[in-house]
Amino acid sequence: MTKKEANIPELYVIGAGPGDPELITVKAYKVLQTADVILYDNLANKELLSLAKPDCDQIYVGKQPYGSYTSQEKILELIKHFAFTKGTVVRLKGGDPFIFGRGFEEILFARENGIKTHFIPGISSMQAVGLEDIPLTHRAVSEGIWVVTGTKKDGTLSGDLRLAMQSNSTVVIYMGMKQLDQISGTYIEAGNGDMPAAIIQHASLPKQKVVKGVVKNLAQMAESKQLTHPAIIIIGPVVDLYNNI
Amino acid sequence: MTKKEANIPELYVIGAGPGDPELITVKAYKVLQTADVILYDNLANKELLSLAKPDCDQIYVGKQPYGSYTSQEKILELIKHFAFTKGTVVRLKGGDPFIFGRGFEEILFARENGIKTHFIPGISSMQAVGLEDIPLTHRAVSEGIWVVTGTKKDGTLSGDLRLAMQSNSTVVIYMGMKQLDQISGTYIEAGNGDMPAAIIQHASLPKQKVVKGVVKNLAQMAESKQLTHPAIIIIGPVVDLYNNI
Repeated sequence: MTKKEANIPELYVIGAGPGDPELITVKAYKVLQTADVILYDNLANKELLSLAKPDCDQIYVGKQPYGSYTSQEKILELIKHFAFTKGTVVRLKGGDPFIFGRGFEEILFARENGIKTHFIPGISSMQAVGLEDIPLTHRAVSEGIWVVTGTKKDGTLSGDLRLAMQSNSTVVIYMGMKQLDQISGTYIEAGNGDMPAAIIQHASLPKQKVVKGVVKNLAQMAESKQLTHPAIIIIGPVVDLYNNI
Repeated sequence: MTKKEANIPELYVIGAGPGDPELITVKAYKVLQTADVILYDNLANKELLSLAKPDCDQIYVGKQPYGSYTSQEKILELIKHFAFTKGTVVRLKGGDPFIFGRGFEEILFARENGIKTHFIPGISSMQAVGLEDIPLTHRAVSEGIWVVTGTKKDGTLSGDLRLAMQSNSTVVIYMGMKQLDQISGTYIEAGNGDMPAAIIQHASLPKQKVVKGVVKNLAQMAESKQLTHPAIIIIGPVVDLYNNI
């Protein structure tokens, strides 16, 4: 089949990884080189766009956290429009599209509209905190991971944290920078205010910022190094594993 | 600095991804081409070894789950030996080295022994279950992920599951194929036996096997398609999101 005949409507939902453009998968790297259209997010590294063909349309559909954004409905519309007019659409998302990325919503929409779909996972931001000497698990220290988001629709972040504290799992919070006081308060109430905690912004990029401390001080920690969203919060003894050696 | 002079002792702890060799990162792909020695695991795809230089030593240090294995002590010994005699040692591990991979233990050991260390995260097996139409999170359905292992040193898997059931997090169990009855029993006791559940073996590889059903039937599900370890168990409404559309 020649390229011309191959212009069937297709959607690739692809994880761009945490920031460092080399933390994308080889599979995604290759697909970017064949895309007819790339719809890319705020958190996907723009350097990856240089892989595209000269005639590839590159369209920014990013959402600034808490700021102005392209609505999800508009993104779905664009996917449909370009799949049928151009062919292969790549939806390039920061991190992993199926971890708080709404990637599966886009897959479902595309299928309902007769568009062939493909998924390529990406390294999620929480995995990049390993670059700051914080492993998500460590034998006999933390043998589980609880990943939550500060933007849960039902607003039950504190409830989840109270459950998580009863296990020895590492707690990872995405999009929690507006809930720092609530998070600290939940741990303090349970007598766990001195649990090690870290905040990491732009993990894996040269502009990466990290601050380590204890969970009761999250707000001051963020303030001290001027960390803002998007950032990852990690709570648990894995945070100071290396410092303690 | 010429290559000859560059033979300083170094360790790269690298995630090979879930199985498909193209799900390794671009960064790891490049490092494999420069390694003097590769110490590789059972779950790392052997095709990746073909990237190595002709004079690269490739040594299998895999652990068969529940079977014979190279002890962790022996692996540490090999890291030290080869870093000082050959130079750049790559420790190639299936999935992500910091998610139940003991990767950080190897990093700590290397540093204690004066070996320079690097970490490159990998796509973890749970992320590859997206290839079976199971997203780890989905807006308004599951806004958290609880990752546990069936091989916790303190044997508290059931306790963790009882906590997780009180949230709406997706539950992911690594190395749980010997605890299927215990897992089912914990959910049944809590009146949650009909929660959707899936078992996925060799996710992302052509030999991938998957079975979907409800958590009370895990053992029969595994039996029906002859799934064994290593496999991932996923419990939560995200499992039949696509079937229900």
